[in-house]
Amino acid sequence: MKLLFGYESSKDRWITLKQIFIFDLPKSGINKMLRTHTCGELRLDHVNQKVTLAGWVQRVRNKGGLIWVDLRDRYGVTQLIFEEGSTDKSLLEKAAQLGREFVVQAVGVVIERTSKNDKLPTGAIEIKAEELTVLNPAKVPPFIIEDETDGGDDLRMKYRYLDLRRNVVREKLQLRHRMMQETRKYMDGQNFIEVETPVLIKSTPEGARDFVVPSRVNPGEFYALPQSPQTFKQLLMVSGFDRYFQIVKCFRDEDLRADRQPEFTQIDCEMAFVTQEDILNTFEGLIKHLFSAVKGIELGYVEHMTYADAMKGYGNDKPDLRFDMKFVELDHLAKGKGFSIFDQAELIVGICAKGAAEYTRKQIDELTEWVKRPQIGAKGLVYVRYNADGTLKSSVDKFYSSEDLTFWAQAFGAQPGDLMLVLSGEAKTVRKQLSELRLKMGEDLGLRDRNVFKPLWVVDFPLLEWDEETQRFHAMHHPFTSPKREDIPLLETDPGAVRANAYDLVINGVEIGGGSIRIHDRATQQLMFTHLGFSDEEAQKQFGFLMEAFEYGAPPHGGIAFGFDRLCAIFGGSDSIRDYIAFPKNNSGRDVMIDSPSTIADAQLEELSIRVALKK
Amino acid sequence: MKLLFGYESSKDRWITLKQIFIFDLPKSGINKMLRTHTCGELRLDHVNQKVTLAGWVQRVRNKGGLIWVDLRDRYGVTQLIFEEGSTDKSLLEKAAQLGREFVVQAVGVVIERTSKNDKLPTGAIEIKAEELTVLNPAKVPPFIIEDETDGGDDLRMKYRYLDLRRNVVREKLQLRHRMMQETRKYMDGQNFIEVETPVLIKSTPEGARDFVVPSRVNPGEFYALPQSPQTFKQLLMVSGFDRYFQIVKCFRDEDLRADRQPEFTQIDCEMAFVTQEDILNTFEGLIKHLFSAVKGIELGYVEHMTYADAMKGYGNDKPDLRFDMKFVELDHLAKGKGFSIFDQAELIVGICAKGAAEYTRKQIDELTEWVKRPQIGAKGLVYVRYNADGTLKSSVDKFYSSEDLTFWAQAFGAQPGDLMLVLSGEAKTVRKQLSELRLKMGEDLGLRDRNVFKPLWVVDFPLLEWDEETQRFHAMHHPFTSPKREDIPLLETDPGAVRANAYDLVINGVEIGGGSIRIHDRATQQLMFTHLGFSDEEAQKQFGFLMEAFEYGAPPHGGIAFGFDRLCAIFGGSDSIRDYIAFPKNNSGRDVMIDSPSTIADAQLEELSIRVALKK
Repeated sequence: MKLLFGYESSKDRWITLKQIFIFDLPKSGINKMLRTHTCGELRLDHVNQKVTLAGWVQRVRNKGGLIWVDLRDRYGVTQLIFEEGSTDKSLLEKAAQLGREFVVQAVGVVIERTSKNDKLPTGAIEIKAEELTVLNPAKVPPFIIEDETDGGDDLRMKYRYLDLRRNVVREKLQLRHRMMQETRKYMDGQNFIEVETPVLIKSTPEGARDFVVPSRVNPGEFYALPQSPQTFKQLLMVSGFDRYFQIVKCFRDEDLRADRQPEFTQIDCEMAFVTQEDILNTFEGLIKHLFSAVKGIELGYVEHMTYADAMKGYGNDKPDLRFDMKFVELDHLAKGKGFSIFDQAELIVGICAKGAAEYTRKQIDELTEWVKRPQIGAKGLVYVRYNADGTLKSSVDKFYSSEDLTFWAQAFGAQPGDLMLVLSGEAKTVRKQLSELRLKMGEDLGLRDRNVFKPLWVVDFPLLEWDEETQRFHAMHHPFTSPKREDIPLLETDPGAVRANAYDLVINGVEIGGGSIRIHDRATQQLMFTHLGFSDEEAQKQFGFLMEAFEYGAPPHGGIAFGFDRLCAIFGGSDSIRDYIAFPKNNSGRDVMIDSPSTIADAQLEELSIRVALKK
Repeated sequence: MKLLFGYESSKDRWITLKQIFIFDLPKSGINKMLRTHTCGELRLDHVNQKVTLAGWVQRVRNKGGLIWVDLRDRYGVTQLIFEEGSTDKSLLEKAAQLGREFVVQAVGVVIERTSKNDKLPTGAIEIKAEELTVLNPAKVPPFIIEDETDGGDDLRMKYRYLDLRRNVVREKLQLRHRMMQETRKYMDGQNFIEVETPVLIKSTPEGARDFVVPSRVNPGEFYALPQSPQTFKQLLMVSGFDRYFQIVKCFRDEDLRADRQPEFTQIDCEMAFVTQEDILNTFEGLIKHLFSAVKGIELGYVEHMTYADAMKGYGNDKPDLRFDMKFVELDHLAKGKGFSIFDQAELIVGICAKGAAEYTRKQIDELTEWVKRPQIGAKGLVYVRYNADGTLKSSVDKFYSSEDLTFWAQAFGAQPGDLMLVLSGEAKTVRKQLSELRLKMGEDLGLRDRNVFKPLWVVDFPLLEWDEETQRFHAMHHPFTSPKREDIPLLETDPGAVRANAYDLVINGVEIGGGSIRIHDRATQQLMFTHLGFSDEEAQKQFGFLMEAFEYGAPPHGGIAFGFDRLCAIFGGSDSIRDYIAFPKNNSGRDVMIDSPSTIADAQLEELSIRVALKK
């Protein structure tokens, strides 16, 4: 037998293996529970009770013959005290040698503290220790296990299990748990049935971003992991399940951006015999329930806005409505006055930043530089300052009279003290640029409070969008989305103008869910595939089962899916989803903690009838 | 545009595509809800109300100028009535032409039925139809959509979405939903946090049965799908999550037996600072809660039995305790009487079937043939019939006196009217054979009632089991299971005798869950890997992260996992898990409905840096 080393608590030393099990269990023996209370529950009511606690050593202080040990678990922190004189000497010595993150069990009596700590729920008491058992020693952790840590991103990812030990991180996952529980409670209460759909499904031609799984039993063939359970939930509607939901892992093998994960979680939902209104009402109800149950916030009215209005008013299909600053178009006021940049522009559009007239010239120059950065790409920025004294000062005074600018101010609904910012250029581009500027101004002016939540339904999305790369139309939502009845003739004449029965739920400028009323008859579905450039054979091969299902009595139906990771991040007031995932992958799709993905043995590849073929 | 065909309800004919949308929506328009009530909720209270229902046509009866249509949805069936004279003629014609499984919307007034149907919750009323809209026609389904169907297994798998339309099938999935909800409710109430662990993990050397997923971003490397979240849940314990659970999909690429699926669902759980007793109590609580909440059954006392006792008493580590028929060993009574088969046997062991003395000679001969089948493999069967008159008649009267047999009967605790059945041979083999016979006798005597539930904890499983094929010990549960403290010295001298802190929950002879107290220190874990034949390098490469985690303050912990599909099947009183899975795969791991797995494009393979390499 090889000699391995372990830590023996009674002698406080590292010993060889055969003796190692001495510290494996507390003195009280295997069948005794390891604690009578958690580290978060003792109060003055418990004084004089003999208790057993177990947890991690957060801190040891040693002063004037007294040793205090802060013992931590998920539920809180309780202070143990060892006192020279009244505490057994060997116990004192043992306590003095405890290190950070040691796992210990302590038996003692609850006593009232002389100096109480109001900040701690257990701060009125401490435990006069009588026994101390090291259940497991700990090496010095690679970073500090406190709310504020000195560990960098990479180190914390490698030792994710230690990062998760920090209260601020664990609490995010407890929030996630609460969100899951409350989602299910609401959905169950609304008669939705949770159905697990398969993870091993079929790769689709659109599935360039599918993860695939070779089948050993069916050599040369592959499963794919679902990017969403879309077709299965539609089949459940054909089956008469009426109301389906699932909190489900989905997968997408795309090049990862900072805030994407190859595996992510959706709240996936579908309803039969409904119109769009039913769906919006039902899921507005879900979001309101979550805000109320998890955050104690009553959301109130949820605005509805068409995609066209969102693009026109905010340059964005997911406007942040925590602040107004709506787009105002100035073409009729600003053209034909000799300012050639505006005269040549397809669109002149601006925003009015309330109370920002105090921006200095330097600040405005910085804004101008900001919009000219390559990421934004504006050519320049026109400003009009509405001074407190009622006068107007702009960067284009050469071309516009005071009266001209007064009209502008009226168009903006501006007041003295406001700052108007105007961009011009190609309509689509300039709206996008102004949207970025609007968000920046909202941020700079402190209008994007993380504790304020403004939900919004964006409706009437386009059915199709033009893809420059492939030079054809793609489904904006997915190929199962139904066009609006009245727009169907446009499919032939102006496909880009066809509106879909599709909707997104947006909170604070973040899309947290989207869905649509689906096509539910074979002919329309087939027409849709034709318009998306599928041959009949391709359509049949990939989605024949769905189209066939539509011939056996498919009810009208529609649904929605929420990005659960993002929803949790929004609730937690965070921009990043990563902290809301227990074991996230990094930007290269790697789990650096377990070092995955990894190579596998040739024998395993052979069994799966595949071979690695690296590109040169 | 290609000509495709659709069904136009108002004219009841198939038409070309441009007209198809006529039937797409009900007459009442897009924004009106598609129904005011479900097909399961109308009662006498609703009489005279005008209602809108939507659902599937279950049946059309046409008799003497009256047409009845049974309209079905998930919630029930409601009868529509169309009456010559009072109903509009075109409406009557339309109703007459409805086919089975058409999806329709009907508007009408609730009236009291003249002949009520007591078996139907809605049987006191019917709907006098005023409008009828075909929302979608249906081809004749390939099998009958009733509780009893004429569809074979293969056909029902291919059209699973139609099979799911049958009440008896859908109800199984509704049971599953209820089980999930109640499981989460209980676990949440016990302070467990549900944490989603990754699906894309790392292949292990034990992972011959891992499904793997090539990484596009990391060419030549693979993820694996988890066979269980074992290491992650242990890391969550190291993180101080204290109580974790998850209802989670797991994957195993093994040769499929009738009742195995490549993807299956577990209730996965782990607790820190606990002993085995805590875990048994907590999860006995879960099972009791489920039986009470889902089936209204109070389980009562749950027996504990050691693995050794289960093997000795029932020849099986998952005894069915709905009936007694415990093994009785007869060596001391039956040897040395000249019956050479018994004299040479390692073990003589039998069961006493209460009240089975009336078995005829022919029936006993059949039993003898049954145990001699290759699947069982016994050499023969000895019986002793305890006649009602108190006499004893056996198949070995030549060797045993009436007094001998009386001793046997006493050993069995037999009464007049009972039948004793005895096997002999190599101990391990004969116990297995007798276990099969015991189950058969239980079945034949009607002692295995599907509505009776007998739970049992089997404890003290062996740590290791000998594998004949590889000629070494394997972990019986898994390599993370802790040996019993007092048995550790045996690891060196008699590894097969080492008992583990491992336990199974068995109900009615089916293992529904199993778990263990885990190893929580590096040294023991490393020792375990050594005993399992891992080199230090292998152990480090595969489980280094876990062993390292054990050095940073790992608490004592343990857990359990329940096979959720099987648990649902047990609750539903079924032997097969397949019906409790919405979209199961067949015995070749194929989803015949979507035709998966399937080949994928060369371009996709190339992007993934793999190639298909079929064996010749």
